Amino acid sequence: MNWDKKDLLGIKGLSREDIILILDTAESFKEVSQREIKKVPTLRGKTIITLFYEPSTRTRTSFEIAAKRMSADTINISASTSSYVKGETLKDTAKNLESMMPDVIIIRHSMPGAPHMLARIMDASVINGGDGAHEHPTQALLDLFTMREKKGKIDGLNITIIGDIAHSRVARSNIFALKHFETKITCSGPPTMLPPYLEDLGVKVEYNIEKAVKNADVIMMLRIQKERGGISYIPSIKEYSTLYGLKASHLEKAKKDVIIMHPGPMNRGVEITDEVADGPCSVILDQVENGVAVRMATLFLLAGGDG
Amino acid sequence: MNWDKKDLLGIKGLSREDIILILDTAESFKEVSQREIKKVPTLRGKTIITLFYEPSTRTRTSFEIAAKRMSADTINISASTSSYVKGETLKDTAKNLESMMPDVIIIRHSMPGAPHMLARIMDASVINGGDGAHEHPTQALLDLFTMREKKGKIDGLNITIIGDIAHSRVARSNIFALKHFETKITCSGPPTMLPPYLEDLGVKVEYNIEKAVKNADVIMMLRIQKERGGISYIPSIKEYSTLYGLKASHLEKAKKDVIIMHPGPMNRGVEITDEVADGPCSVILDQVENGVAVRMATLFLLAGGDG
Amino acid sequence: MNWDKKDLLGIKGLSREDIILILDTAESFKEVSQREIKKVPTLRGKTIITLFYEPSTRTRTSFEIAAKRMSADTINISASTSSYVKGETLKDTAKNLESMMPDVIIIRHSMPGAPHMLARIMDASVINGGDGAHEHPTQALLDLFTMREKKGKIDGLNITIIGDIAHSRVARSNIFALKHFETKITCSGPPTMLPPYLEDLGVKVEYNIEKAVKNADVIMMLRIQKERGGISYIPSIKEYSTLYGLKASHLEKAKKDVIIMHPGPMNRGVEITDEVADGPCSVILDQVENGVAVRMATLFLLAGGDG
Repeated sequence: MNWDKKDLLGIKGLSREDIILILDTAESFKEVSQREIKKVPTLRGKTIITLFYEPSTRTRTSFEIAAKRMSADTINISASTSSYVKGETLKDTAKNLESMMPDVIIIRHSMPGAPHMLARIMDASVINGGDGAHEHPTQALLDLFTMREKKGKIDGLNITIIGDIAHSRVARSNIFALKHFETKITCSGPPTMLPPYLEDLGVKVEYNIEKAVKNADVIMMLRIQKERGGISYIPSIKEYSTLYGLKASHLEKAKKDVIIMHPGPMNRGVEITDEVADGPCSVILDQVENGVAVRMATLFLLAGGDG
Repeated sequence: MNWDKKDLLGIKGLSREDIILILDTAESFKEVSQREIKKVPTLRGKTIITLFYEPSTRTRTSFEIAAKRMSADTINISASTSSYVKGETLKDTAKNLESMMPDVIIIRHSMPGAPHMLARIMDASVINGGDGAHEHPTQALLDLFTMREKKGKIDGLNITIIGDIAHSRVARSNIFALKHFETKITCSGPPTMLPPYLEDLGVKVEYNIEKAVKNADVIMMLRIQKERGGISYIPSIKEYSTLYGLKASHLEKAKKDVIIMHPGPMNRGVEITDEVADGPCSVILDQVENGVAVRMATLFLLAGGDG
Repeated sequence: MNWDKKDLLGIKGLSREDIILILDTAESFKEVSQREIKKVPTLRGKTIITLFYEPSTRTRTSFEIAAKRMSADTINISASTSSYVKGETLKDTAKNLESMMPDVIIIRHSMPGAPHMLARIMDASVINGGDGAHEHPTQALLDLFTMREKKGKIDGLNITIIGDIAHSRVARSNIFALKHFETKITCSGPPTMLPPYLEDLGVKVEYNIEKAVKNADVIMMLRIQKERGGISYIPSIKEYSTLYGLKASHLEKAKKDVIIMHPGPMNRGVEITDEVADGPCSVILDQVENGVAVRMATLFLLAGGDG
C-alpha cells in the first residue's frame, strides 16, 4: 500500500487503507520525539508553510515541531501579519506562495473549503489544518491513533461523542474516519447541537448523556466553540454544563477501561470536570503527543515520498 | 567584477555593473528552488534578521525562504511584538540587535531613510525591504531579472509604468535601475500621481493610457497604495479603474510579446482586470519566483563573500 | 562543580557556585558569536519553545539567537496568537506543550510565579524570562557577567542601582545575585519606589542620587516601567528625570573607571541622558552582547548535559 494523494484535505476522500497507512507511519515516527536527539533528516531541503487565518497554539506548534524534527524549513504566516490586510484574495496569496516553491502548505481558515480551493490551484501539497466547521483531518487521525494505541484496535469500539456536533469539524472528521471501521458511534448533546444528518450516517443520536455513555469504550468530549457562535445554541453555559458536562459519575456507566478524549483547548468546568480531565481514564495529553507523530507521518507521506 | 558594498539600501548608489552582478548571481541560485532538496550550505552559521514595521507576506516570506534555503538562521521581528511598544527608538533597537552579532538585517519601515540610518550605525549588512515611498531595491532587481529572463535583455526595451508613481517605492527603484540601461520609460497615471521630477529623470509622461502602452515591451502596473493615502489623490476607485486600470484591449496597442508585471498584492478590478492578470502575457507569478532567487543572490553577496 | 538543576526560575535558589558556573560557561560560548560561522552542534535535535505573554524584542530574540547558534529547533509562541484567547488555562497550555516533548520552555508572564508553576508540572526545563515584578534571572546573570568582564571580578565592587527598585524584576534578581559576592549595594530612587525590605537584605538606601553614586564601580539604571504602572509612583516624568535621571555630572562623583549599565529598553532623557548612555563609561551594548552568551550557557547547562 502506497500513498498516492497530493493533499490531505479531509477524511472524506480517504479509504480505510489510507487511514491505516497514516497511523502505521505515525507509529514509526512516534519514537523520534522520545529520543535525546529528536531529529531525522527525512525532509531536509523541504519548505513547509503554515498559513493560519485563525489563532492556534496547539495545531500550528504541533505541525511546526513535526516539520522541524524532520529537518524541514518552516515558515509561519498568520493572518494578522499577512498581506490580506491589504485586500489580497486568498487565491492570490496562495498563487504567490506557490511561486516560492513550497512543498507543503498547512492552512487553517474559517471558510469551509478554503483548503480544497488552494489544493486545486497549487502544485504544493495542501493540508487542511481546520476549515470552519467542516473538517480537521489530522485531529481525527491523531484521535484514531490514540484509540488504536490504547485499545489495540479500532474495529469493535463503542465511541460516544458529546457536545456541539453540528459546529465541530473535529466531530465530523472523526465520524467520517470511524465509519471506515466497525465502530458503534453515539452522539449526544442538546438537540440544537445535533445535526439532522447524523442518523443518515449511521450514527446513533441519544440526547440523554447517561444513556449515551453506557458501555462506551471511548468518550470524546467537544469544546463549546464560543468563537464560532456555539454559545447561542444553548440557554446558558451553566445549564449546558449540568446536562452535558462529563463528570466522574458518568464513567461508571461506561466500560471499565473507558478512555476520555478531548481535542482541546478545554473549557474546564463546562464540558468536562477537572476530576475527569485529570483522572486515570483521560488520554487527552496522549492525543497531543500523538498529534506530533501523526503530523510527521502526514508530512512524510505528502512531501517525503518523492525525495 | 566583485561586490564591495556592505549594504543594499537602494538602487541609487548601484552601478550598471552592480545590477548585472546581482542578476547573474540570482540566475545561478534560481535552480536551487527547483530542486528536490532545496538547500545549499552557503550561509550556514549566519544570522539574518527581518525587522518589519509594516505588514508583509510576500517580501518577508521571500527573504525568509531565501535565507533558509541557504542554511542561514533567521529571526523575525514584527513591529507589533517588538520593544518599540515600550518607546524605544529605532536607533536603540538597531544598536541592540547589532550587539547580538547578526550578519544581515532586512528592514521595512514607513519612514524613508530608515534603512540608511541603520546602515550608518551597524556593522551588519542592511537590506532595504521597503522604506516609505522611497525605495524597494530587491523588488526592482527582481523586476529587471524577470524582464531580462523573458526578453533576453534589458537594453532597448520600451517600459511603461502605470499608476501612482509619486507614492510608489517600487516605481522609483525601477526607474533608477532602468536608467542604467538603454530603455525608454513611459509613466502614466492621473496628474496627481505623477511627480514633477519624472521628466528630469528622462522619463516620458503620458496621461493617456492608450498612448502610454503603445509599442511597450513591458507594462508594469502599480497598486493603489491605500495604506499610504494613495486613495485621496483620485476622485474615486471606480474612475481610476476606468481610466487607468489595465484591460485586455490595451494589450493590442503594445508589442505582440508584451509582458505584464505587478509587484503585488493586486487590487483585482482596480488597477488590473482578471483577464490581464491571469492571461498569457502576465509574468506576475514569475516575478514572485524570481524574488526568491534575487534575494538569495543579495544575501549571498552581502553575507557570503567573506565566509 | 556540575549543574544539577532542572530549571532556571530565579536567582533565588542559586548558589555562588551555580552563578560562577554559568558565567564561566558563558565565557566559553561568547566567542561563538564572534566567529565567521556562528554555529555549534551542541543542541542539535533539541526543541526550545519561547512562550511570551508580554511583548519583548530583546529577550526573545536573544534566546532565539542563542538557541539557533547551538543548532536547536526553536518555536515561538506569543500571547496574541496563542490558544489562551480561547480561554485555556496557563496550566493546560503548559501540559499540552509538554506533551510535544520540548527540552526547554522559556516563559515570560506578567504573573509572578508563573514559571515556577510550569516547572512543577513539566519534565522540560523551564527558564524564567521575566515574571511580573518578581525575577529575571538571565538578565542578572548577564549583568554580573558584564561586571566581571569589565572589572575582572565581582567581589569588592560598589554597585549603585537607581530607579524603580520596587517594581523591577531586574533589580531584585541582581540584588539576589550580588549578595553572593562581597559587594556593597546602594539603591536610590524616590521613596515610593524603594521597597521596605531593602535594608533587611543588607542593601543601603540612599535617596540622594549624588550621594548614592559616590565611589561607585557600577551604576545600574532602571527604566521607568510605564507598562507596569510605575508612572503612578512619581509626580511627573519631568520631576523624576530631574531628581533621578543619570547625567554626566554624576559620573564625576563615582570611581574614575565606573561602568554604566541599563537593562533596556532605555527611556532616553528620562532615567538616563544621551551623553551618559552613549558615553565611554556605558557598557549597555556589551550587556546585550553578553546576553546571548549567558543564554547559550543557560540552555547548554539545562539541555545539553544529558545529550
